[in-house]
Amino acid sequence: MNFKVPRGTQDILPQDSWKWHKVEQIISDVCRAYRYSEIRTPIFEQTELFQRTVGDATDIVQKEMYTFEDRGKRSMTLRPEGTAPVVRSFVENKMHGIPDQPVKLYYVGPMFRYERQQAGRYRQFVQFGVEAIGSDNPMIDAEVIALALDVYRRAGLKDLKLVINSLGDRASRAKHREALVAHFEPRIEEFCSDCQTRLHQNPLRILDCKKDHEHPLMVTAPKLTDYLSDENAAYFEAVQNYLAALNISFEIDPNLVRGLDYYNHTAFEIMSTSEGFGAITTLCGGGRYDGMTEEIGGPNAPGIGFAMSIERLLLAMEAENVTFENDELLDVYVATLGEEAEKFGFVLTQQLRAANIHTDTDFLQRKMKGQMKTADRQQARFVIVIGETEVEQQVVQLKNMATGEQREVAVSEVVTTIQQLMK
Amino acid sequence: MNFKVPRGTQDILPQDSWKWHKVEQIISDVCRAYRYSEIRTPIFEQTELFQRTVGDATDIVQKEMYTFEDRGKRSMTLRPEGTAPVVRSFVENKMHGIPDQPVKLYYVGPMFRYERQQAGRYRQFVQFGVEAIGSDNPMIDAEVIALALDVYRRAGLKDLKLVINSLGDRASRAKHREALVAHFEPRIEEFCSDCQTRLHQNPLRILDCKKDHEHPLMVTAPKLTDYLSDENAAYFEAVQNYLAALNISFEIDPNLVRGLDYYNHTAFEIMSTSEGFGAITTLCGGGRYDGMTEEIGGPNAPGIGFAMSIERLLLAMEAENVTFENDELLDVYVATLGEEAEKFGFVLTQQLRAANIHTDTDFLQRKMKGQMKTADRQQARFVIVIGETEVEQQVVQLKNMATGEQREVAVSEVVTTIQQLMK
Repeated sequence: MNFKVPRGTQDILPQDSWKWHKVEQIISDVCRAYRYSEIRTPIFEQTELFQRTVGDATDIVQKEMYTFEDRGKRSMTLRPEGTAPVVRSFVENKMHGIPDQPVKLYYVGPMFRYERQQAGRYRQFVQFGVEAIGSDNPMIDAEVIALALDVYRRAGLKDLKLVINSLGDRASRAKHREALVAHFEPRIEEFCSDCQTRLHQNPLRILDCKKDHEHPLMVTAPKLTDYLSDENAAYFEAVQNYLAALNISFEIDPNLVRGLDYYNHTAFEIMSTSEGFGAITTLCGGGRYDGMTEEIGGPNAPGIGFAMSIERLLLAMEAENVTFENDELLDVYVATLGEEAEKFGFVLTQQLRAANIHTDTDFLQRKMKGQMKTADRQQARFVIVIGETEVEQQVVQLKNMATGEQREVAVSEVVTTIQQLMK
Repeated sequence: MNFKVPRGTQDILPQDSWKWHKVEQIISDVCRAYRYSEIRTPIFEQTELFQRTVGDATDIVQKEMYTFEDRGKRSMTLRPEGTAPVVRSFVENKMHGIPDQPVKLYYVGPMFRYERQQAGRYRQFVQFGVEAIGSDNPMIDAEVIALALDVYRRAGLKDLKLVINSLGDRASRAKHREALVAHFEPRIEEFCSDCQTRLHQNPLRILDCKKDHEHPLMVTAPKLTDYLSDENAAYFEAVQNYLAALNISFEIDPNLVRGLDYYNHTAFEIMSTSEGFGAITTLCGGGRYDGMTEEIGGPNAPGIGFAMSIERLLLAMEAENVTFENDELLDVYVATLGEEAEKFGFVLTQQLRAANIHTDTDFLQRKMKGQMKTADRQQARFVIVIGETEVEQQVVQLKNMATGEQREVAVSEVVTTIQQLMK
């Protein structure tokens, strides 16, 4: 019996995990600077939470969720996205009562969507997201967008494009919706079956269709922007002014609608414009979701957030030929000859590790040559050699691999000697 | 509709997540020093992987797994433990072919067991574990145990007890098994129904029974240690000698068998001996699992590892009254008065953040008093006050909250001034 990683998922192996550490460090640094605190919600939630918020008519809920019954016969779903769980936690833990509002949260963790397999898409993928809940000041919309861009910039990405739109509030959306139905209905049979279903369930999503996006009616479709109330338009303009104040350039795309039902007002995406990047250019998407707290039984608390895939961020880095420097390297390799030396070297290895010096030794009782090869492959900065004589005399041979210099050091002074050489 | 976190799971909220960051930093530091690299496997695996390795007759497989059919009709299980997935990845990715052996890996992530609810037990819990695969040198057994203890010590725990045992190899275990069946069979009706099932499926697990542990036959049961071959006994003694060489004290408990089928040779647990700790005192468990790679279709590659629950580590810290210092604090709060000042302050906030200074500002257009209260609650080191006059003159009022000292600083010099004051 051979076992494989489940289809659409991947192992992150040591040759790559150090890059994830780098990205996670950037995320942690940026979130601390912006004062977003980490929240961790469970891997699964009650299925109904996503039906209510992401929306019954969306692809995610209709086709892509990992839903199962637990042993208590409750319908659970592996979270397909991070906003609904965070908002659930905000309401359940009465975070609207925290004195300092808005509550600014971030998360990093796996999400699950049973999607058709294609390059750059995984069924389990890792999203970093933030949610700022409790303010409808357009300034926080700009902050959230700036935060996402900062993460990409600190990761070294340059070929980025920010696209924004306003979806308006419920009233504006209802008017636009009517106009959309009137626009598409006469020729709806020319559209895919999904779009035909969407026409009355959620006509806005027709604009998002991957199959029909070249249909001429798409270009002439009524634009949401034309249906915004004066108040909605003023809000959208304020967001743009704050972005301009931060020297953040953007494009307005009236067709940007996002694939989830809960968005309103500001919606945005950040794309990679790198030539090396694949067909899916969206790195990050987000927007406002005023009303979600009420939808799930909580008080009024307007929110905005985004989610970005870490896998895509790493792909965009590859496309732009940006690399991190791997600093998870070996400081000292302890090579030993003979049983006594092995034990002696093991104790010394532990002493070095206790001083936070990254150290390894041989566990296969190999010949000196094999051990030296390991030290080379692992790019050890120092090699310590211990044989019978060294054990007797309580010394070691210490070799600096950069300079080639070798010297004898008393075992009691090895740790401090290496600490000094490493400075 | 009110939504709650699924039973047996928890949200890790901002008031606690910083403690998790501390523990994760310790884990990362120790693993780097010991040269264990991180591996991340998916949240779910083929169900059969756990049936094969953890064992069909174990409580985990029989009662506690979150098993579901995916949309492709494959039986998947949310991982109940981390060793089998890591060994699956070792075999699938042919890591036995990596030149430097043993392969030393660690993981940190959620595990899932549908257990009866009780204090300190979660259905989703986070485990840190290591696996060293590719060496049967008893020295690596000692290294793995030392690593676990180092993590606890760096977290500040002192009340720790290490218990070890040897389960021997397959031949020794078979002899012992026969002796156990002969010992319990005459009076098996005095035991719980689980033990009656275990008698022929896996009699070793009777010794592990939580219900029958006071039955007199438990004390007189044949001990595995008495059935070890000479070779097995020598191996166990070598492990003990290495632990002694590292000044690690331990107890031998011949009844320590662990709840998973795959263990052999060295088995160990680390317990909290703190009085404040609850009924479940085991913090960490591990052992050798030679043969697992072959069991799932791979080459021979002996392995040893452990898993520890982060939740229990944090509980043990509480029991010992050990606390971390929270260094995720606010450096600068930017308080503003009026619309122009708000925007001016927002741009300055972003400049400070770009310099990695942890900064926040007001998003609710509150009065100065409310903003100052936020700065106090968040223990801001500095407060910047900006009103109309300041915007006009391009200056800010900068207050050092520790000293009470206040001064006017040109806006172009705010970042460098604060950087200097923070040194």
